[in-house]
Amino acid sequence: MAAVKKAAVKKVASPVVKKAADPAVMKHVFFFGAGKAEAKGENLTKNVLGGKGLGLMEMTSIGIPVPAGFTISIQTCAEYYRLGCKLPKTLAGEVREALAKLEKATGKKLGDSKDPLLVSVRSGAARSMPGMLETILNLGLNDVSVEGLATKTGNPRFAYDSYRRFIQMFSTTAMGLSKDHMEDLLHTMKHDAGVMLDTELTAEQLKKLCDQFKAFYAKKKGEAFPQDPADQLWGAVMAVFNSWEAEKAVTYRRVEKITDLIGTAVNVVQMVFGNKGDGSGTGVCFTRDPNSGANEFYGDYLINAQGEDVVAGIRTPLKLETLKDQMPGVYDQLLAVRAILESYYHEMQDLEFTIEDGKLYMLQCRTGKRSPAASFTIAVDQATKALLSKAEANRLAKKGYLPKKWADVATSLVLTKEEAVARITSDDIERLFYPVIDTRRVSLQRLKDVRLGGGINAVPGAACGQVVFTAAEAESLAAKDIKAILVRKETSPEDVGGMHAAQGILTATGGKTSHAAVVARGWGKCCIVGCEALNINYEEKFMTLGGQRINQGDCITLDGSAGEVYNGELPLKDPELPASFATLMGWADKLRKIKVRTNADTPYDAENAIRMGAEGIGLCRTEHMFFDTEERRLAIQEMIVAETLESRKAALNKLLPFQKADFVGIFKAMDGKPVTIRLIDPPLHEFTPKDKVGIDKLSAITGLSADKIRHRCEQLHESNPMLGHRGCRLCITYPEILDMQVTAIIEAAVEVAAKGGKVLPEIMIPLAIDRKELKILTDQARGVADAIIKRAKSKVRYMVGTMIEIPRAALLANEIAEVAEFFSFGTNDLTQMTLGLSRDDAGRFLPVYVMTEKEGGKGIFKADPFQSLDQSGVGELVKLGIERGRSTRPNLKIGICGEHGGEAESVKFCVRAGMDYVSCSPYRVPIARLAAAHAALSGK
Amino acid sequence: MAAVKKAAVKKVASPVVKKAADPAVMKHVFFFGAGKAEAKGENLTKNVLGGKGLGLMEMTSIGIPVPAGFTISIQTCAEYYRLGCKLPKTLAGEVREALAKLEKATGKKLGDSKDPLLVSVRSGAARSMPGMLETILNLGLNDVSVEGLATKTGNPRFAYDSYRRFIQMFSTTAMGLSKDHMEDLLHTMKHDAGVMLDTELTAEQLKKLCDQFKAFYAKKKGEAFPQDPADQLWGAVMAVFNSWEAEKAVTYRRVEKITDLIGTAVNVVQMVFGNKGDGSGTGVCFTRDPNSGANEFYGDYLINAQGEDVVAGIRTPLKLETLKDQMPGVYDQLLAVRAILESYYHEMQDLEFTIEDGKLYMLQCRTGKRSPAASFTIAVDQATKALLSKAEANRLAKKGYLPKKWADVATSLVLTKEEAVARITSDDIERLFYPVIDTRRVSLQRLKDVRLGGGINAVPGAACGQVVFTAAEAESLAAKDIKAILVRKETSPEDVGGMHAAQGILTATGGKTSHAAVVARGWGKCCIVGCEALNINYEEKFMTLGGQRINQGDCITLDGSAGEVYNGELPLKDPELPASFATLMGWADKLRKIKVRTNADTPYDAENAIRMGAEGIGLCRTEHMFFDTEERRLAIQEMIVAETLESRKAALNKLLPFQKADFVGIFKAMDGKPVTIRLIDPPLHEFTPKDKVGIDKLSAITGLSADKIRHRCEQLHESNPMLGHRGCRLCITYPEILDMQVTAIIEAAVEVAAKGGKVLPEIMIPLAIDRKELKILTDQARGVADAIIKRAKSKVRYMVGTMIEIPRAALLANEIAEVAEFFSFGTNDLTQMTLGLSRDDAGRFLPVYVMTEKEGGKGIFKADPFQSLDQSGVGELVKLGIERGRSTRPNLKIGICGEHGGEAESVKFCVRAGMDYVSCSPYRVPIARLAAAHAALSGK
Repeated sequence: MAAVKKAAVKKVASPVVKKAADPAVMKHVFFFGAGKAEAKGENLTKNVLGGKGLGLMEMTSIGIPVPAGFTISIQTCAEYYRLGCKLPKTLAGEVREALAKLEKATGKKLGDSKDPLLVSVRSGAARSMPGMLETILNLGLNDVSVEGLATKTGNPRFAYDSYRRFIQMFSTTAMGLSKDHMEDLLHTMKHDAGVMLDTELTAEQLKKLCDQFKAFYAKKKGEAFPQDPADQLWGAVMAVFNSWEAEKAVTYRRVEKITDLIGTAVNVVQMVFGNKGDGSGTGVCFTRDPNSGANEFYGDYLINAQGEDVVAGIRTPLKLETLKDQMPGVYDQLLAVRAILESYYHEMQDLEFTIEDGKLYMLQCRTGKRSPAASFTIAVDQATKALLSKAEANRLAKKGYLPKKWADVATSLVLTKEEAVARITSDDIERLFYPVIDTRRVSLQRLKDVRLGGGINAVPGAACGQVVFTAAEAESLAAKDIKAILVRKETSPEDVGGMHAAQGILTATGGKTSHAAVVARGWGKCCIVGCEALNINYEEKFMTLGGQRINQGDCITLDGSAGEVYNGELPLKDPELPASFATLMGWADKLRKIKVRTNADTPYDAENAIRMGAEGIGLCRTEHMFFDTEERRLAIQEMIVAETLESRKAALNKLLPFQKADFVGIFKAMDGKPVTIRLIDPPLHEFTPKDKVGIDKLSAITGLSADKIRHRCEQLHESNPMLGHRGCRLCITYPEILDMQVTAIIEAAVEVAAKGGKVLPEIMIPLAIDRKELKILTDQARGVADAIIKRAKSKVRYMVGTMIEIPRAALLANEIAEVAEFFSFGTNDLTQMTLGLSRDDAGRFLPVYVMTEKEGGKGIFKADPFQSLDQSGVGELVKLGIERGRSTRPNLKIGICGEHGGEAESVKFCVRAGMDYVSCSPYRVPIARLAAAHAALSGK
Repeated sequence: MAAVKKAAVKKVASPVVKKAADPAVMKHVFFFGAGKAEAKGENLTKNVLGGKGLGLMEMTSIGIPVPAGFTISIQTCAEYYRLGCKLPKTLAGEVREALAKLEKATGKKLGDSKDPLLVSVRSGAARSMPGMLETILNLGLNDVSVEGLATKTGNPRFAYDSYRRFIQMFSTTAMGLSKDHMEDLLHTMKHDAGVMLDTELTAEQLKKLCDQFKAFYAKKKGEAFPQDPADQLWGAVMAVFNSWEAEKAVTYRRVEKITDLIGTAVNVVQMVFGNKGDGSGTGVCFTRDPNSGANEFYGDYLINAQGEDVVAGIRTPLKLETLKDQMPGVYDQLLAVRAILESYYHEMQDLEFTIEDGKLYMLQCRTGKRSPAASFTIAVDQATKALLSKAEANRLAKKGYLPKKWADVATSLVLTKEEAVARITSDDIERLFYPVIDTRRVSLQRLKDVRLGGGINAVPGAACGQVVFTAAEAESLAAKDIKAILVRKETSPEDVGGMHAAQGILTATGGKTSHAAVVARGWGKCCIVGCEALNINYEEKFMTLGGQRINQGDCITLDGSAGEVYNGELPLKDPELPASFATLMGWADKLRKIKVRTNADTPYDAENAIRMGAEGIGLCRTEHMFFDTEERRLAIQEMIVAETLESRKAALNKLLPFQKADFVGIFKAMDGKPVTIRLIDPPLHEFTPKDKVGIDKLSAITGLSADKIRHRCEQLHESNPMLGHRGCRLCITYPEILDMQVTAIIEAAVEVAAKGGKVLPEIMIPLAIDRKELKILTDQARGVADAIIKRAKSKVRYMVGTMIEIPRAALLANEIAEVAEFFSFGTNDLTQMTLGLSRDDAGRFLPVYVMTEKEGGKGIFKADPFQSLDQSGVGELVKLGIERGRSTRPNLKIGICGEHGGEAESVKFCVRAGMDYVSCSPYRVPIARLAAAHAALSGK
């Protein structure tokens, strides 16, 4: 069994594009049918056959009933593009051969006038790209064979409906004709017939519609609709290939970060029909519950229906359990298929099946999409419980449906704990924490009814509020505590205030790296971009979407995870964490070798982060405390405008008790875990009063004239504040700030320790640039700290270290490490300086650097360097910094506290680079824990 | 002879501080006298004896008549500070011993009542610090010995005047009493006596003054004025040591960049008197003319006078030649001394001598200060002509004054050409080019009369204009073409406009790295800072300096080279380059191995730079051309506000002929020398109209509303423009700009080449960050260029390369070099990004980083990194960039085009780093040529 398991796990591992074989001798077409599959060995992969093709091929080869067919390889598609959109020469012969095998296996002939073979032609890339690539069904129908089908099935309506659908699909998909006109024809026909639904049209009416379609085709293309199935087949194959480079598909791949794919396969498969009467049916099912992850067979089916009927939702499907009564044999067979496929793939599968006259056909199997909670539950279950009980396995085996080999697997554990951890992604975690639409309180039907449209799911989570069309309006609603959704054609830096004030953001244009997406992601704020159907009338303050007019002030709901927009206010809920989350994270924690800390500025944040599994604070930004109350804001402002050292010290003394109280709270919350506290970092102008009211208040307190205060504030203006008077440069020019902050930290530590608490403060000096600069400040900090500790006769221990966020500091890390006990890489600023890229300004051109050429960009960067660490540039400096730092202080403690500390790829980089910990915002702590575990696994 | 020369040259080479010997066995005191000097071997250096002590010691040992004395070593001073301002234990015994030798050599005793030995106690550091350290003369006088001196000299007035001067000097210098009160006493005495000059006071009056001084001393110090010469001596020694760390001395050392010195020596020397009658005298001379550098003995003297009389300028001194008639023997002896000393030192010497009763004593010799022109002429002369003719040498030898050994040297060349080049400094060159006060048209007396005061000579050159006290007034005068001198307590970034508009800048506070100094230096604009006596009344718009009131609108003249401020408008002249300049630079050019190019944006600049010796243009900033005329400004503005690609291209087409014409001019001027042209670099907002008039004009041209234009301009605002949308990022988002610029460059090149001219354009793409980014742009540039060349059937060749100015580009230089044919390190921006330091904002804290602790700074950086390349940080990136760049393209051409390309230490770094060329502003080209030669020499 172990061998089976191992092989299977290998198969589902992330696909690596293998070098294509020599095209001259390359096999392009692989037949499957009658229990045999042509693809073997290195050809039996997603990268040759695509996901769908592989599934069909594998299902065939392990004895599962699958309609016969053949797959044209992905390499053929790549070759097609290499040849300038021409098919390889040998392809025609290979297809002919495969077709012959197919006709033999099915006993039918394509275009036959009596009992025609019909096929579907479907795309299938190495990764699922739902709805992005083309599909053509019922291929093989023509004016002759449609009659054969009518006769054979005894259902002319079915035959002509199939034919009109085929003509419609082929004309628009393969030949590029307008969809609208054909829809209009259908609409007119229904109108003339006085019916509402397509299904109400008679065979005669459908036949007439076929004629209208064909006439339209002939008019537009200057030739008759192809009657030769071979012509139809080649047209369909080319249509699938062409859809690969269609704009929407290219965008999808970039957004989903699957740009390494080289093309799509084409699957030509015998059509089977679930709509041949009550012995037929069709269904979709999951080997486990995709919502809860429970070990229950889960699905829907319809009797006497085709696949599209299930999808179209016109008839309400039945729960899969009821099939047990309706067709007990088929149901048991399906149960066995479920067990075999999970045993084979070791993964929850999403299956499509059709029952044609009581015979079960599996049409597709693929790894099933699931809710975030289900991801965890399934992985944990697979590593702790068997799929089937022995009794159930025996029962199915006895019926001959479940071979012993698979029964053994289905009654065992299919994953190790390590494999379970490896299977979870950072997206699974991320999605677990965002608010969601409460589907217990809103029916799927209602959801469908109020859906307005969709866009690109830029930032997950759900949000609802009143629609506003300007940033100012969002801010003014927020000021009144009214929830707003900011709707814009696009956003620009001046909208940032309103974006922050809004609950969610919806834009008509832009992709996942547009300004709106990037900014919203920074805050974890629900955001949908690229909602192309959205139309905004700024002047009259309304929008239209999905044919509805929404006025300013009307409520809408965004589902950022799905990229869906709904009319009205839908109920939201905070997600509940499944028990499996804790179990799996526990396994991950045992695997990882790097610590995970959090960025937290308040006792509240700290407590929250502890719950998320944080093992310390990697970044406590002291200046955030200054904004907390007006009293604090005024005290820091007083410090800034002080004209003498004495008045500056007096103002700082007002701040001292606030800071100290905050640190006491944080130390208590962290209970002995290390707390890295960064001294004041931003330039002073960030604290100054911005309006007359603020200036007057400060004037009243300080006795300085308003003019003087205004002048001082103006003086603080900087051309490039990012590179200005900030960080430890403030403490170099105003040493008394450091004195106050270190006093607050150490007095708080001493106080907590005196009451028996554990404390481990790490004082972090930001923006260091030189050994001597840092020496001056660390000496000063130690002087202040040691005096307090000595006076209090305390045994508190502390460390003093620095942030490495300026390239020079990384380059001279050997010198810096002589005076710093720890390093924390501030990769936000390090990225800005290493790339010469201001995060606040890059919105104007960075998208062009990240978007591909097809998207109108230049594809210079693979990812936004502010989201995922630029490993070749910034990463090089990080590696140099670590190496050089440890060259003079081998036990140097090293971490990261930029945004990257919570991004999976960046965390893996940090592990490889030899850091001791990563630190990130509380809600990203689990992501970092998981990524660290993954890094440990891939290091094995 | 060769051996003598070699040794001597070694001696004058830049002093390296040697490790002090073990203090326990260290010799602190070195006696010299009677033709013998105690200091030998490693003790016979400036670093032990100081400049003055070494001179006396060496003169003694080579047989030149010098008064006897002893030197307390510099190491003693350092030990004094190490011991917490206490004298080393063994010092007292050593001084006693040396004093005994001195008394024996002179046959006199300190404090003797008949014929007392008097000594001077003078400081003497390893480098000259004129006026910075203390001196006490006539030490050994007391109530008893003064009478002895009166009797022995028969001149009681002289004796009491010496005594009152000694009391005054000792009280203020050694004991820290107020100078003012003693001056007041002197003043009252003169007033009561009804005389104007000190010299008019009688012996009796002077004696009374001595009593008043002593009474004042006793009252203030609570003890009598020391009568024991030993007490006097120790007081004086401590006073000299203490003056080492006085604020003005510390500042001086920082400003002169001689902060590596560890202390001062103390020279205790027998007093000799030039005021003993007509057989006595005193003088100051130079072995060559310090103004022209001519090989002529040059000096002044006074008969019957002391040194201070020459300095004080009360009597008009005589030209040295007249001594030939007055005291022919002494004169010949002096001629011989001149020959011996230049032969010994191989350098022009500044000498002080005293003749006491017909006997010549040399009191000091040191390397003589000289005019910039003289520096060149002397160095060239010493490498091409002998000091003395054979005849003159024979004549002096025959008289027994000039030993054969020295006669041989004096009739030979004392320098090789390499040594001559090594002797010239970048300061010599810099000073050569600044305007100066025309001393042919203004007498020294007038200069003295109109002198208002002095400050720190921050930027050399002279300037005159009307005094203004605000930046706005400077700008408004400049607008009327009236020259202004901006006078401020200090300057800040908002003054920059006015600073640029002014002819010169004078500030009351600040040092050489203050805002005013740094900004002015960037423009080579005359600037004096730290003029402490300057008092400004901003409200009533006047200043006082040197007791004079200067109102706004009055003229003053600044001599930035000397740091002197004069009342009124003095005549200025452009300096004339001596022939020796060309000769020496020719030698330098033969030595250096690196090319020197210039930064030039116009044909005018280019021609100018060629005259300065530029071998190409390393940086031609195309955007400067856009500011040239209103027509051009409007065209670029039109391009910026363009709403469509078409209108943007139309605006660019207007610019094309201008750019092309400029390039034609530059190519012609450079005549086949390489010209590196940088594509547009600054962010677009730098070009936008700033006021209503400008906006309206643009609105009229473009037909866009003023509101729209204003909005577009506002949109372009950036938080950190340094890290924003600029450099090649502009060409990534607006490829049509690159098309226009490359078209202009290549069309110009083709046109010049078609007329038989030589052209070598190098297209430089700024701010590259990534290989792919650069590949897109170089491909585009080559496409445009090749098409033009092909169309014109031209054979023009060109290169495409990039600036390395972002840390990431340096780190990934191996990748970048795959697509760039050359690199030019833009160390201005590279410094800003590597250090996280905005040049525009650093004024607020960088001075604190550069100033030492004594100056109120922290001494973190040794120099301003924007002036002298930060070799450990930025330099590390440059080295990495070169190494990595050449790893993938071994023949990569590499240069530098930041401000550092014209700074000597940085140029030397560039040579060591293996660059092919440096590029700098035209007037710094000779500095770079010289520095490159120096680097080649030091590499030998």
